[in-house]
Amino acid sequence: MIGEIIAIGDELTSGRILNSTSYFAASHLYGAGHEIAAMATIGDEPRKIGKALKESIERADFVVVTGGLGPTSDDMTNEAVADALNRPTILYPEIFDKIKQSQSFKEMPSLEKLAWLPSGAEILKPGDKIAGYLLVYHDKPIFFLPGVPHQMRELMLDRVIPRLASWGGNNISLVRQKVFKVFGLPESMLQQMLTEVEKGNRQLRIGYYPNVAEVHLSLTVRGKTHEETEKQFSEGEQAIRAILGCCIYADDGETLEAIVGASLRERELTLALAESCTGGLLAHHITSIAGSSDYFLGSIVAYANRVKEEVLQVNKQTLEEFGAVSQETAREMAWGARKISGAALSLSITGIAGPGGGTREKPVGTVCFALAGHDKILSFTYRFSGNRNMVRTKAAMTGLDLLRRHLHGLDFLESGW
Amino acid sequence: MIGEIIAIGDELTSGRILNSTSYFAASHLYGAGHEIAAMATIGDEPRKIGKALKESIERADFVVVTGGLGPTSDDMTNEAVADALNRPTILYPEIFDKIKQSQSFKEMPSLEKLAWLPSGAEILKPGDKIAGYLLVYHDKPIFFLPGVPHQMRELMLDRVIPRLASWGGNNISLVRQKVFKVFGLPESMLQQMLTEVEKGNRQLRIGYYPNVAEVHLSLTVRGKTHEETEKQFSEGEQAIRAILGCCIYADDGETLEAIVGASLRERELTLALAESCTGGLLAHHITSIAGSSDYFLGSIVAYANRVKEEVLQVNKQTLEEFGAVSQETAREMAWGARKISGAALSLSITGIAGPGGGTREKPVGTVCFALAGHDKILSFTYRFSGNRNMVRTKAAMTGLDLLRRHLHGLDFLESGW
Repeated sequence: MIGEIIAIGDELTSGRILNSTSYFAASHLYGAGHEIAAMATIGDEPRKIGKALKESIERADFVVVTGGLGPTSDDMTNEAVADALNRPTILYPEIFDKIKQSQSFKEMPSLEKLAWLPSGAEILKPGDKIAGYLLVYHDKPIFFLPGVPHQMRELMLDRVIPRLASWGGNNISLVRQKVFKVFGLPESMLQQMLTEVEKGNRQLRIGYYPNVAEVHLSLTVRGKTHEETEKQFSEGEQAIRAILGCCIYADDGETLEAIVGASLRERELTLALAESCTGGLLAHHITSIAGSSDYFLGSIVAYANRVKEEVLQVNKQTLEEFGAVSQETAREMAWGARKISGAALSLSITGIAGPGGGTREKPVGTVCFALAGHDKILSFTYRFSGNRNMVRTKAAMTGLDLLRRHLHGLDFLESGW
Repeated sequence: MIGEIIAIGDELTSGRILNSTSYFAASHLYGAGHEIAAMATIGDEPRKIGKALKESIERADFVVVTGGLGPTSDDMTNEAVADALNRPTILYPEIFDKIKQSQSFKEMPSLEKLAWLPSGAEILKPGDKIAGYLLVYHDKPIFFLPGVPHQMRELMLDRVIPRLASWGGNNISLVRQKVFKVFGLPESMLQQMLTEVEKGNRQLRIGYYPNVAEVHLSLTVRGKTHEETEKQFSEGEQAIRAILGCCIYADDGETLEAIVGASLRERELTLALAESCTGGLLAHHITSIAGSSDYFLGSIVAYANRVKEEVLQVNKQTLEEFGAVSQETAREMAWGARKISGAALSLSITGIAGPGGGTREKPVGTVCFALAGHDKILSFTYRFSGNRNMVRTKAAMTGLDLLRRHLHGLDFLESGW
């Protein structure tokens, strides 16, 4: 289906807030097989909102509107809808009852406004605190969602995409979608690897969403019956998993640092780091998890060779003979971090982030890693493309991924990207 | 003036790329005193582009269009303009000459397309590599800018805003704008502090752009003559500087880490860190500057007390008596980092990022800092609001700001925010 997206709010047209909700909506609608013909952003003015809405619904098969559903005086979406689509607002007693029971109603009686919706509005999550409704106008669906990003995302994934899949005359009544997080393969290679999965199957669609150093992919299957949809979906998922293997690290939104943290906690292991080119970025990711102090002891960010020698006890001779960026130095760094911290496991990273410092043998982007446990040390060299920031980011995330693969007994990545 | 913004590109409507150029345009146009009535995003379809453009220019006083100016077949803005506004494209020989001289023309003859522009187009930066032109339609200006963010930003600030200021019958012919970066004061407090500066002066406008842990403010002055504009501007700047003092750390786009790095380099000083709650984030910021290895030696991310004791040589007794989050511990951490690294200057950070770990005396958000030089140690305690991520970010950036203030001999911040 062809849709349009309208975002409402003065905070958007005045450039105070970056509009990420329309982006989220567009990417997931596209992933689910729809086409977005236009996206509009409009200030809090009922007349303009109404006009834009009317024009959109005339052109498109469906419209998604975000923002302007709150209780304050500048939330005007419902007013605009009432006027423009001739659907006067009426009181929804089931919503009002909930509001009256809430603590905040005493301090803020204007919350009553949330219970007045255009007549014919179908609440998307009845009984829930999230505002949002569906209005059918000339047989076309208009979804009104809150502007608060996480609420909007929840309704988008749980309500809008499934409802659109079963809409109208296309005879397709069911949709199943899952997002896989993939680490270690660039988008272009992924697309190539998965061409065959998508080919010739019009019910199945794969969306690619590059996200810093990783790619998120969505698998969407649309079918007429429950059995058919489930069968297609499970075949699609199996095919994707067979091709990508353990490069898929999550299908439930988990982050690499959360997965590594949970594994360390479960196995009652402690971790220490020795970082050079990543400059503390890996430690920052690991400590972004609340409670990480239970398993994370610390990181020695050894930027200068003196710190490598004095704190991590890397041999001067190793540094001179093999250089600071070498598996030999990486191994001694990891060993040193483990020894001084008393950690069960340690990881080191040393590389050339650029723009300077590269040589013919070790160009910018060369990064060495070592993993030290109680009985052995493993080491790796990868080469990453991109600018200084990208090399550092890829190196830090690869450090996390090495920990994940080690803790889960998986094969290690063969190369950088 | 009232304007509209149109962003063009399938990569936007399919949600592959987040539209940050419209946001940039809106925020700076707003800061310059204009109102944005609507923002639209449209795919690469000439008919739709033309229609949207025509509707926008009928409603608004000016239109800014971004994207679709490149040499590939999906860049269709000029085609759309030619059709919709009846301005057939003609060859601009001065552009074509430049293209013919370029190396890439041999490999990519389709670059010729860049020299064909709608008749009447006025090149915004003649002789420059950046595409972008102004077209006057029914006496209203339409600015066509590239979709590449940094090019679009350059033309927006250097060409669009000045041209709009001198446009048409408003008799205002000049505009002066500057962006100040402010650290250590929240947006709400800034607005309160600067109310008087803006009050009663219609030629002067202050825009506020919160940016992670800091606020960027723009001062825009519009006047009829050069003298008047300059006078108003310099009075406005003086007033802002008198009120905010050294909380303004840059007016030229510099980052805190670049300023601190340049000061260390200039004074030939080296720096080491000891981080606890920030988990390596401050080291990451400092090492984001290429060449930082000239002055940055390293950071001990001492998450566990054992690392504080063993590596940083913090006294067990200090930890027991005052706790890990105390100025006493912070001072010993800074001292230890300086000693083991041999740095001239060291900074330590230890705090409670939350969500757990807070007490009545030391609630979540309490962060202690110490700065150690060759002859003295200074220490500070600040309290920051926000979630774990925000507390960590504010703490790391405050560490940078402490270094800046110390290196420049400025007063220190009195409290967190």
